[in-house]
Amino acid sequence: MAAALDNDDLDAILLGDDDNAAAFLRLLPHPADIVEILRAVDLRHWPRLLRLVFDEGERAETVTLLDEGERQALLSLLSSEEIGQLVKNLETDDATDVLEDLSPRDQAEALQSLLPADRERVEELLRFDPDTAGGLMQIERAQVKITATVQDAIDCVRALVEDDIGVHVVYVVDEEERLIGTVELSRLVLTKPDRLIADLVEAPLVKVMPDTDQEQVARIFKKYGIYSLPVVDKESRLLGRIVHDDVIDVVVEEAEEDALKQAGTSAEELLYRDQVFPVARIRLPWLIVTLMGSLVSGLLIHAFQHVLREALVLASFVPVITAMGGNVGTQSATILTRGLATGRVHIAEVPRILLRELRVGLVMGLVCGIGVGIIATFFFGETSPMLGLVVCVSMIGAMMTAATVGTLAPATMMRFGVDPAIASGPFVTTANDSIGIVIYMSTAIFFLQHLPHAAP
Amino acid sequence: MAAALDNDDLDAILLGDDDNAAAFLRLLPHPADIVEILRAVDLRHWPRLLRLVFDEGERAETVTLLDEGERQALLSLLSSEEIGQLVKNLETDDATDVLEDLSPRDQAEALQSLLPADRERVEELLRFDPDTAGGLMQIERAQVKITATVQDAIDCVRALVEDDIGVHVVYVVDEEERLIGTVELSRLVLTKPDRLIADLVEAPLVKVMPDTDQEQVARIFKKYGIYSLPVVDKESRLLGRIVHDDVIDVVVEEAEEDALKQAGTSAEELLYRDQVFPVARIRLPWLIVTLMGSLVSGLLIHAFQHVLREALVLASFVPVITAMGGNVGTQSATILTRGLATGRVHIAEVPRILLRELRVGLVMGLVCGIGVGIIATFFFGETSPMLGLVVCVSMIGAMMTAATVGTLAPATMMRFGVDPAIASGPFVTTANDSIGIVIYMSTAIFFLQHLPHAAP
Repeated sequence: MAAALDNDDLDAILLGDDDNAAAFLRLLPHPADIVEILRAVDLRHWPRLLRLVFDEGERAETVTLLDEGERQALLSLLSSEEIGQLVKNLETDDATDVLEDLSPRDQAEALQSLLPADRERVEELLRFDPDTAGGLMQIERAQVKITATVQDAIDCVRALVEDDIGVHVVYVVDEEERLIGTVELSRLVLTKPDRLIADLVEAPLVKVMPDTDQEQVARIFKKYGIYSLPVVDKESRLLGRIVHDDVIDVVVEEAEEDALKQAGTSAEELLYRDQVFPVARIRLPWLIVTLMGSLVSGLLIHAFQHVLREALVLASFVPVITAMGGNVGTQSATILTRGLATGRVHIAEVPRILLRELRVGLVMGLVCGIGVGIIATFFFGETSPMLGLVVCVSMIGAMMTAATVGTLAPATMMRFGVDPAIASGPFVTTANDSIGIVIYMSTAIFFLQHLPHAAP
Repeated sequence: MAAALDNDDLDAILLGDDDNAAAFLRLLPHPADIVEILRAVDLRHWPRLLRLVFDEGERAETVTLLDEGERQALLSLLSSEEIGQLVKNLETDDATDVLEDLSPRDQAEALQSLLPADRERVEELLRFDPDTAGGLMQIERAQVKITATVQDAIDCVRALVEDDIGVHVVYVVDEEERLIGTVELSRLVLTKPDRLIADLVEAPLVKVMPDTDQEQVARIFKKYGIYSLPVVDKESRLLGRIVHDDVIDVVVEEAEEDALKQAGTSAEELLYRDQVFPVARIRLPWLIVTLMGSLVSGLLIHAFQHVLREALVLASFVPVITAMGGNVGTQSATILTRGLATGRVHIAEVPRILLRELRVGLVMGLVCGIGVGIIATFFFGETSPMLGLVVCVSMIGAMMTAATVGTLAPATMMRFGVDPAIASGPFVTTANDSIGIVIYMSTAIFFLQHLPHAAP
């Protein structure tokens, strides 16, 4: 919708007269379209536009379709009565998502607006970490005892469908609520109502505990191509289910967060559109940290200035050595980080990977080092006969060290519970800049000292 | 499973006696588990292990669960009879995925192994680009005419369930096969078999044409949280459906590909595990391109060596200026690339974003430039009174230019049909290195010339 209208037209409608804006919002076929419209205007207009959405259910769903950062920012602009109204119209998992963004006081107030039964369920869900299976699951599901008939299961589905809750599978439990298996809706359709559910039940392919990390949940959905996933407690009692659409959100948002984190920013800045200072404030801390790192490189150059003074031509190859070290390190770090993130690589395999990266670094260092060495000799060979050799040897050294740093940095971060996505960004690059300079200058000194009269 | 066993144990079982390996593979509950096992050993063992999978259907499904690069590599090791056997056991979309990786001759041979009706459907699907809705869709679906009864729809579901094809929705079409709407299975369960389907049908929330890009398809699934998406032709005739699990694959694999592409490598290298030369061969082309870029930086340093000779202390701040330019450029490029990839930002908004990035660059440049300027003055102020000013001014200039390059590079690549993910990698960094050096050296010359006796 947003793309069909000119941005200025859209601003005129949305930021002008309330009646016009409300009429426009009513034309949108789905709350997801309202989300797109909100994203086209500044955050400060969101509460007003949201209030203009006529249908309460639609208004509540709009809020759940926002990304986490957007939702947090919006909620901070709403009154606790308004939040209470929203929460009342949501399914348990979505209500929990909204409530966990609130301060304890606002949360308690909003909880009061729920019916006692719902409140209890939501309070239960609030106890789980939002980034785990428990945080993703919803309590609503079709569930029958193993002694039930197909008709019982159909009645259970009816109750959910009347509440507009999607059902594709009926969970079957024993007397103690322990999960026995599932029955696909397509099986129910094909079976006579007086048959026993026990004749149809299939063992669940996979189930998870509530403390399973959300990335692990996403991997399970991808691995098995499933539609929903039951969450059970230690005694195998069914607690809830995770549905595929929440998992797509997790996958997309994690990929987004990783990409932004590597560049030293976060999804938060997307909220600020054209506001310069908040965006700069989000990006600066990380820039300042990398600035410190680059000052170390500068300090090293300063420490080696006597070498440069003797052979200024060395300075020309500093950017070449540091750039290649940075790039090789980024490659190694990215390969390992992605492997760890997708579960393809286990932390125990790091020694094997390090060995491979070192060997790959050696091969690539030989190719690049010999190439650059020839170039250096061709251009500066007459005045600086050793320059080619110094550049070649230090390039190989710098690239092998860079591969080592690129592999060890994310592995170490992971050990200490830091997200390794940060490591494949400029931290590795900055570290490799400094290391490259030391290797390059030391190599130059070695050749200067050991081969006098052959200064590079 | 793979994690529960030691890697050496696993190797011993899988690479040893055929009977042991076959018995082990039979213990695995799902083809997705076989995929994990394959990934733990080198590619050259895959054909043998696959032949040891007893059940034909399971063997075929294993192949469909591989990533695209893995599947291509495996197929190149199988005979055309073996591929024909696999394809026979697959649903249309999966058969198409396998066939489109083959050479025209192998493809024609494998097509012969299909039943004529299936062959026709698969040949139809092969005409679509694999990265579009047409390439993702499957032909199998529950479909009834608008004049049908609920019982007709149930019979249609039965036929699919007997073929083990997942159904959650029945598509309703008119006499010309044009899509009218859908009926959820949960509605079918709750309705008497003699009712007309016309009473239950709901208009489809969203549908796509077969040439819709797969990233757009993924966005639609995320936006609406849907389970499946109908694909229609220009006359609105239903062609097939895309199901959620194929979309999760797209999202995960695109995120993976983007991350690897930014670091100048590709998912292909994951196939080679510990083989050094193939991995180096994949990473080298891009390294050599960035090497050329860094040589330009070196050349620039060389061109400005008379400035350095006059004030060698300038050399110490070269890595600081280039590192900060690179980092700011990466931030700008990442923000724009992610915005374009998620559809949050439209290419028409680039001028607005450029303006914001310039202003953000200015603010961050002021903070970092003044900070580094003070540091430079503190340490070198006595001997080089102007150094702080030179560093400060050129830092601001370099950071603003870097923000510009970081914004324009992905936008330009997008215009010319190149994936902008490449731009936020070291191409931007390398370009900004050179630009930073020119700005820094020019600033130094300016102050050297215009303020004589105040050399930095």
